[in-house]
Amino acid sequence: MKVLVLGGDGFCGWPTALHLSDVGWDVTIVDNLSRRAIDLELEVESLTPIRPIGERIRVWEELSGNEIGYVHLDLAEEADRFETLLRDLRPDAIVHFGEQRSAPYSMRNIPAKRYTVDNNVRGTHNVLAAIVAADLDVALVHLGTMGVYGYGWSGSAPIPEGYLTVKVPTPDGDIEREILHPANPGSVYHLTKTLDQLMFTFYASNDRLRITDLHQGIVWGTQTPQTIRDERLINRFDYDGDYGTVLNRFLMQAAIGHPLTVHGTGGQTRAFIHIRDTVRCIQIALENPPARGDKPMVFNQVTETYRVRDLAQLVSEMTGVEIAYLPNPRREAAENELNVSRDRFMALGLNPTTLSEGLLEEVSDIATRYRDRVDPTKIIARSTWREGMETSPDLMKG
Amino acid sequence: MKVLVLGGDGFCGWPTALHLSDVGWDVTIVDNLSRRAIDLELEVESLTPIRPIGERIRVWEELSGNEIGYVHLDLAEEADRFETLLRDLRPDAIVHFGEQRSAPYSMRNIPAKRYTVDNNVRGTHNVLAAIVAADLDVALVHLGTMGVYGYGWSGSAPIPEGYLTVKVPTPDGDIEREILHPANPGSVYHLTKTLDQLMFTFYASNDRLRITDLHQGIVWGTQTPQTIRDERLINRFDYDGDYGTVLNRFLMQAAIGHPLTVHGTGGQTRAFIHIRDTVRCIQIALENPPARGDKPMVFNQVTETYRVRDLAQLVSEMTGVEIAYLPNPRREAAENELNVSRDRFMALGLNPTTLSEGLLEEVSDIATRYRDRVDPTKIIARSTWREGMETSPDLMKG
Repeated sequence: MKVLVLGGDGFCGWPTALHLSDVGWDVTIVDNLSRRAIDLELEVESLTPIRPIGERIRVWEELSGNEIGYVHLDLAEEADRFETLLRDLRPDAIVHFGEQRSAPYSMRNIPAKRYTVDNNVRGTHNVLAAIVAADLDVALVHLGTMGVYGYGWSGSAPIPEGYLTVKVPTPDGDIEREILHPANPGSVYHLTKTLDQLMFTFYASNDRLRITDLHQGIVWGTQTPQTIRDERLINRFDYDGDYGTVLNRFLMQAAIGHPLTVHGTGGQTRAFIHIRDTVRCIQIALENPPARGDKPMVFNQVTETYRVRDLAQLVSEMTGVEIAYLPNPRREAAENELNVSRDRFMALGLNPTTLSEGLLEEVSDIATRYRDRVDPTKIIARSTWREGMETSPDLMKG
Repeated sequence: MKVLVLGGDGFCGWPTALHLSDVGWDVTIVDNLSRRAIDLELEVESLTPIRPIGERIRVWEELSGNEIGYVHLDLAEEADRFETLLRDLRPDAIVHFGEQRSAPYSMRNIPAKRYTVDNNVRGTHNVLAAIVAADLDVALVHLGTMGVYGYGWSGSAPIPEGYLTVKVPTPDGDIEREILHPANPGSVYHLTKTLDQLMFTFYASNDRLRITDLHQGIVWGTQTPQTIRDERLINRFDYDGDYGTVLNRFLMQAAIGHPLTVHGTGGQTRAFIHIRDTVRCIQIALENPPARGDKPMVFNQVTETYRVRDLAQLVSEMTGVEIAYLPNPRREAAENELNVSRDRFMALGLNPTTLSEGLLEEVSDIATRYRDRVDPTKIIARSTWREGMETSPDLMKG
């Protein structure tokens, strides 16, 4: 099976490329290295010492005997080249990670908002149009986000996997209709994922493309069984205020003895999944695509949910570092429940790594091991989500 | 009141600019003349002899004494220039017609699909981001389409004005939720309007922008009380297979004695509005914006509905030309009802021009008067909406 991994140099893309290569797929990475370029812009680096993509691929081939192809290409700006690539390679499957994936970055300033929309929407549409142009019967798996649903919208009902059956009042009584779960994006980044959904629905209907959209929670963990085989294969670990997720922020703060910064009450419940489970979910999704003519298939790619303050508590207990509560820059409910349907992956055999099992490995093997590489000034988020919101103080200086 | 008319050289934009200028607004047109450039690409011309934008504006000033500003600018490609323009002009209102607006053109080929998404989504997002950047409290009125709703989705219930209250089942019983009417776009063009809706909802919520989205039906008619004052002010009349709407196709076919081509059974019901009413609706919308913090206001901008075959019948009776039934290239129901709520504009005083009153003027003053300018080979739609669909034959040759 021949698979393209778009964004295959990134945090999810690289371990996915290695995993699929390891299980015998013929992998080609497409990436414009934009994530590394944004590190230059933000003046940060991955905590872990990631190597250039060429070296990564060379080392993997030495260790595994498996070749991975690599094409440097911008999906948003080089649509014609991408179309030619599809016509030449004729892959059986495409995994699409090629989007700007930080919510705080997308709210950083006007150019970042524009870049996020331009890059994500154009890139995704170019992928869809190129599949039609090349007349490929390909399984397309896209990484979406739990954030398309918003939080607390559906009351006590669990968040469904993509679709919701509702009752619509008519003069002849209520009629049932299945709808895409209404979109409730909390940032420009999340907005682009809700736009993607509508594009997928249209192309699945009009052009009979076979599309799976994975509504992923917050990915944690750094290493997979493949990336751990050699330090030169190590995956990236982002701890900065824009790209570091809440858990990575806590881990780094703990590693350097900075209080764990919780925004608001910490009552926000979020969904999580380990990177090891992400790469297996991708494989499961690739092997179980919808039929031609079907609507897009949606999986909720999460394995457990935590309140932010409980997560802080977990890290605090493990490391002895205290917790500090700060104002929340996001326009969101202070407290929310999160009850997520995730039957599909469980039915297909996923046996997940939980935070209570795997977190200590992250503390010792990543955060503590590489803490000398950290720039403590970069841990705190600086994005102003809207007019008048303060950013958080750095408590080490304050 | 200072207003920017984005796309102010186009079919709706130009008469809107004149109407607002006539009622005393200070109007500046922003346009990249893309509609004229697409005419060059398609090798067609407006049936009516439209003049260059500079001449149009000069003649209007001679006749009315009112100046209209003009900035040649591409909203999708020149975001920074647009932001600077907003900071300099600080308008009170913006009317946004600056999108590629033909469904058949958007399905013509892969580059046209890409152009439609890139131009419409980037352009609209750039407008929103620029308003935030310039910190303007502006009324933004956008031209959407009835096509976002799809046809026949809500059974016997009338299509509401943008929002729908549905019942969502939960373990504690049904709960009521107001949602954006689910999106059911029938072309890439319509798709972009459904993406716009989500962007508007986000920016209204996060940045408190004041946005009105007009879900317009098919606009017919050519002249308004302003454009008719001098032939050099005349509005465009598109009759080609891509930009000509069904009614204009019938009018041209009648003018040259070609059978009126109905796709499918002609049972498709569509919503219509005269251009004279469009420009008045725009003014009403500008004068009744939502408050800051409100969700986007949606008006259904239609005045009557017709089945396509009944419309053909109306034109046939007026002109004596016969009707021909051809295969339908669109993926749509053969027959549909269309019951549209349009209470808002009616409540605000719109007294519309109906097809049965105004159609004869179009036959005599436009189609017949300018029929020597027609290229008969351009009347039939050539866009293939999906693999395997035939385009219609030209019955004059066949």
